[in-house]
Amino acid sequence: MIFSSFKINEEEKIHVQIEQHIKDSIEKGLLQKGSKLPSTREVSKVLSISRNSVISAYEGLESEGIIESVKGKGTFIAVENKSSKGDLYIDWENMISDYGNICEKLDVVKNELPWKKGMISFKSIAPDESLFDLEEFKRAFLNVFSIEGDKLLNYGYAKGYKPLIDYLKEYMRKKGVNVEGKDILITNGFTEGFDILLSTLTNQKDIIICEEPTHNTAIKIMKSHGLNIKSVKMDADGINTKLLDKTLREEPAKLVYLIPSYHNPTGIVMKGEKRKEVYEICEKYKVPILEDGFNEELLYSSSHVAPLASLCAKGNGIVYIGSFSKILFPGLRIGWVFGDEKLISKLESVKRARNIHSSFLDQAVFHKYMESGAFKRYMKKIRKHYKDKYNFTLIQVKKYIPHEYILGEGGLHIFIKLKGVKGRDVLEECYKRGVVFMPGDIFYSNDYGSERIRLGFSRVSEEDIEKGIKIIGDVVSEITDKNKE
Amino acid sequence: MIFSSFKINEEEKIHVQIEQHIKDSIEKGLLQKGSKLPSTREVSKVLSISRNSVISAYEGLESEGIIESVKGKGTFIAVENKSSKGDLYIDWENMISDYGNICEKLDVVKNELPWKKGMISFKSIAPDESLFDLEEFKRAFLNVFSIEGDKLLNYGYAKGYKPLIDYLKEYMRKKGVNVEGKDILITNGFTEGFDILLSTLTNQKDIIICEEPTHNTAIKIMKSHGLNIKSVKMDADGINTKLLDKTLREEPAKLVYLIPSYHNPTGIVMKGEKRKEVYEICEKYKVPILEDGFNEELLYSSSHVAPLASLCAKGNGIVYIGSFSKILFPGLRIGWVFGDEKLISKLESVKRARNIHSSFLDQAVFHKYMESGAFKRYMKKIRKHYKDKYNFTLIQVKKYIPHEYILGEGGLHIFIKLKGVKGRDVLEECYKRGVVFMPGDIFYSNDYGSERIRLGFSRVSEEDIEKGIKIIGDVVSEITDKNKE
Repeated sequence: MIFSSFKINEEEKIHVQIEQHIKDSIEKGLLQKGSKLPSTREVSKVLSISRNSVISAYEGLESEGIIESVKGKGTFIAVENKSSKGDLYIDWENMISDYGNICEKLDVVKNELPWKKGMISFKSIAPDESLFDLEEFKRAFLNVFSIEGDKLLNYGYAKGYKPLIDYLKEYMRKKGVNVEGKDILITNGFTEGFDILLSTLTNQKDIIICEEPTHNTAIKIMKSHGLNIKSVKMDADGINTKLLDKTLREEPAKLVYLIPSYHNPTGIVMKGEKRKEVYEICEKYKVPILEDGFNEELLYSSSHVAPLASLCAKGNGIVYIGSFSKILFPGLRIGWVFGDEKLISKLESVKRARNIHSSFLDQAVFHKYMESGAFKRYMKKIRKHYKDKYNFTLIQVKKYIPHEYILGEGGLHIFIKLKGVKGRDVLEECYKRGVVFMPGDIFYSNDYGSERIRLGFSRVSEEDIEKGIKIIGDVVSEITDKNKE
Repeated sequence: MIFSSFKINEEEKIHVQIEQHIKDSIEKGLLQKGSKLPSTREVSKVLSISRNSVISAYEGLESEGIIESVKGKGTFIAVENKSSKGDLYIDWENMISDYGNICEKLDVVKNELPWKKGMISFKSIAPDESLFDLEEFKRAFLNVFSIEGDKLLNYGYAKGYKPLIDYLKEYMRKKGVNVEGKDILITNGFTEGFDILLSTLTNQKDIIICEEPTHNTAIKIMKSHGLNIKSVKMDADGINTKLLDKTLREEPAKLVYLIPSYHNPTGIVMKGEKRKEVYEICEKYKVPILEDGFNEELLYSSSHVAPLASLCAKGNGIVYIGSFSKILFPGLRIGWVFGDEKLISKLESVKRARNIHSSFLDQAVFHKYMESGAFKRYMKKIRKHYKDKYNFTLIQVKKYIPHEYILGEGGLHIFIKLKGVKGRDVLEECYKRGVVFMPGDIFYSNDYGSERIRLGFSRVSEEDIEKGIKIIGDVVSEITDKNKE
């Protein structure tokens, strides 16, 4: 009945609450002109309140002409719902789920200071599109389109475009990973792979372990899933393994999420021995690893570092999420999840429930491009390009920005620990002077990181890098001086 | 401590359970060689059990050599975790969330009889790719790629490619929809739009109302979100409005999901008057409508039926999900959500958290294709093509398949109610004879629909349509005869 959703609060008189509830129900269309109300006796019984309160409420409503009682028949609604004539209006902002609100609250694009024309921006770690091989890409398109354009434009398969899956499996094998019993799901980039994995494997409040700091998008997704994030501090050479062991011992975790190569945001590359140690710890506690292959391709030095997944010789406990988005064609949104074939089969069903599959045309063109040899030539070119740029940027940072330490060994960004100066204070002042970058705190799931900043240099000219870093340095010095006063 | 996750069951002796718990904890690596166990007194206190049970458990473990007690010091783990030497092995099947399991359980591709080479398949309602204008598409690609290929291959925006958004807004306006205060989010097809909307607007157990039957993918997504689905029966001209009113009156619903044009699976087109009635009912109860624009474009008859969204003159309560995937390039996975700009802004953040954005290259090529006039020419061609095919199929169905009634007015499929014959029984036998189709029950969120079947004809040749339908008809007759015996 109409009072089943009614809850008494203790701050208002009960008859006032009953009157309001009936008015609201009319407003919502739940009670219409002519609807019969339950008797005062019934209401008092259902709500366990005195009958007098109900009588008093009904009398009040009757005096306003909202209800009328007909002797021997009962009490009826006497008015039309006025607002029901007209347009359907919804207060959307009040309808948003917790999930929706978290996604918006942690949406860096919406909440951080926006780039404006003429500004020097160190925010992005997207690749420099002027380096893309457009002619090779076009050739790849024309090639696949002439062969199977019609099929590529029709529905494909949730798992992905078979030749691309095979190519990536071979690509993983060449990295030293045992691909037997493993499979691949093509996703719309790392973001979708990570999101689908968390949806498929976790429930709210599950414990997930990650490095501190870590990729801000990963933090957003873990929080949006309501996970209990336990972050483990990093040393200069990667995650602190004693702390990792301790954290795993204290309470069973569902997953460990790690970025072993060119870690975002620190740029640290975890060395082989530490990789082994981390693997053995996770093995001891039987907790799966989600390995973020982020920027692994950007290895500047010649020494090959195999992914964590390569340590899992016969096991199936490491899931590798790959993406070329930081080096190649991020606009296509192509990434992949590599792991146990039984797991991939589950992820395939989730992918199908999310968006059927990723663009088949893009997958086919991408595959043709990779296979053609263009990818190898491109990688050779950009490794040198970004390495030179990294070294140039590092020199400027050392020269101009007073710092406690600088982390990282390459990649497309530099992570700086300032000395007693808050990154957000620096950003605020730099913004006025036409320079933006990422404040370090967004990479922390807790409140640390305030004295850190990340500078992405991939899309900034050398001239602007020097100019921008000089401005940042000036601001840091000024704030340092002010703090001393 | 180690017993904080321990739960006593009443079927086993307590000391056995304690022994097992300690063994499991060693296995999981939570207890290591040398770890000190809590005293028997502590354990009995924490678990509120007799101390004798604990002593008995410890004695048992000691006799097995698993623990050892050292006088005056306590009891310690005496063994290494054997399984910790070797590979990380995870039992993934046991790690899957409810969400992941529902996605797989309701995955039609995995669970329905698969098409095999040589079979006649009425399962699909995908467009016939041989009708696509490949030359026009290639022209559109070369056109946009020469202008902004580099930018399109780099990161874009979560909301979508601006010219496509503007094009679709104008497209909605031409359908008679008031676009003021409205905005558009580009998604990877209807599926992603619907999934993102449910994630953003609903919580588990919320009530969602839909037609009965309805789109099976929508049922899967609603169930995967844990929603309380209330389906409202359809009459021959669409949803039963009295039942809709009654259902909304009984309990407040969060959303109403409707497919007003070429409804899937029935093919019913809701007439103008009924559309108004449905709108007014939802307006009365202030419940938002998610309108699935499915196949609206395929209007065979000349009479224009405006979307429900056009009835919402100044309001903001209808969200329209659009997709061309049943007629044009489904492989690209391009769809859109049209609605209140405040809502679209929330959806934009969710889209960004899911996969950053949809392929910008695809969006740009698609836009160029639409804008070029190729879309209009294509629509003219396929309307006639599919209309002729629909009429041809209908004649075969009437001729060969004994039925109670046939629903629909066009589209890419025909929905048939059999007389006392189960669709799945027919399918099983037809499969042996080389014919597959969709059993009707997958379109029901409850257990109804067993005597219905859906035949999609878009990708079947006329020859095969006749041949396949004749086989279905034979099987239906045979089963009917058998039932009579």
